[in-house]
Amino acid sequence: MAKEGVAHIVWHPTTVTKADRQRRAGHKSCVLWFTGLSGAGKSTLANAVEQELHQRGLASYVLDGDNIRHGLNKGLGFGEEDRKENIRRIGEVAKLFVDAGVIVLTAFISPYRSDRELARSLVEAGEFIEVYVKCPLEECERRDVKGLYEKARRGEIGQFTGISAPYEEPLQPEIVVESSEQTIEESVAAVLAYLEQAGILTYEKKHDA
Amino acid sequence: MAKEGVAHIVWHPTTVTKADRQRRAGHKSCVLWFTGLSGAGKSTLANAVEQELHQRGLASYVLDGDNIRHGLNKGLGFGEEDRKENIRRIGEVAKLFVDAGVIVLTAFISPYRSDRELARSLVEAGEFIEVYVKCPLEECERRDVKGLYEKARRGEIGQFTGISAPYEEPLQPEIVVESSEQTIEESVAAVLAYLEQAGILTYEKKHDA
Repeated sequence: MAKEGVAHIVWHPTTVTKADRQRRAGHKSCVLWFTGLSGAGKSTLANAVEQELHQRGLASYVLDGDNIRHGLNKGLGFGEEDRKENIRRIGEVAKLFVDAGVIVLTAFISPYRSDRELARSLVEAGEFIEVYVKCPLEECERRDVKGLYEKARRGEIGQFTGISAPYEEPLQPEIVVESSEQTIEESVAAVLAYLEQAGILTYEKKHDA
Repeated sequence: MAKEGVAHIVWHPTTVTKADRQRRAGHKSCVLWFTGLSGAGKSTLANAVEQELHQRGLASYVLDGDNIRHGLNKGLGFGEEDRKENIRRIGEVAKLFVDAGVIVLTAFISPYRSDRELARSLVEAGEFIEVYVKCPLEECERRDVKGLYEKARRGEIGQFTGISAPYEEPLQPEIVVESSEQTIEESVAAVLAYLEQAGILTYEKKHDA
């Protein structure tokens, strides 16, 4: 980082653009939108992918229940309107991170196609990469890491995706990983291979409009 | 950026932390919260500071009306509850950017101390830098870049800060710039000097907890 003095700043009335930030970061930015049943391994995979991106020196950030539910989306419930608003805000924040030049990874069940399509519509073509973390319901229920399936079966949680509410599978996801059949390393490699062929991992001048 | 193959990824179940991201970026992250009357020059100054940060190779992003009002905060009005919620969400998003290792600059009137204190409370000590962009009301009204003061005087806009609603001056802002008395270059230099002495512009090992 330059450590020049601040005395001779000359200001030009322009703003820093998304392309400027991507150029500085040395790579393009995008949303990696992980979707799938509770327990499918979305958050684990998103964090593993971020770890690999970080080790390669790329700017990345994970949005998941841990930093959203009790912060930005505090106060939202699980009714239809709040559910839509929950995903809408995540999509809007993801857009801001893309604009900031960051590869942002979101890990939410996001069971409805219409909600995911809304999030997709907020960013430019090629910037929204839907990653379907596929895993049979029986396997998610067998894992039941948070004990939620058991509660849902007992009727203690209403509208639980896969039990008492639908999960709408992506029709044309950019990436599908099968978490019950692939190792986490294989899944990370699949996501990275996609990013590589899509030209996200580098910034080339041809991206300048 | 490394261009190694993806075949030999080895996954360790850890997550990338704020400190990791700051170390990679080569500097600390923080919120620069610009507050002041409409027309005081908050957005102009925030963009000028970002330009300087960007030229020094630092990761930065500006949140202002342009990317928030019609996106994340679409649908919020100007009543008391919505006004609080508007600033709360901006504070929460700013926190996410700090966590992501980015220097985030917010440019909103944010006239109430309680709202700004809430935003301050969301991040760690030293991460919230309140920049009071001070400018006499008469000067803001004389500039009236957006024609809002004229409308407010005619009663066409209710609850307009400085005319029909209060502006609560910061009691202990980290930085004060007087936009009617300082050039934009001087104001940018003042902000950069603060960031330099606060140790934000570099990342040193002593920050590792």
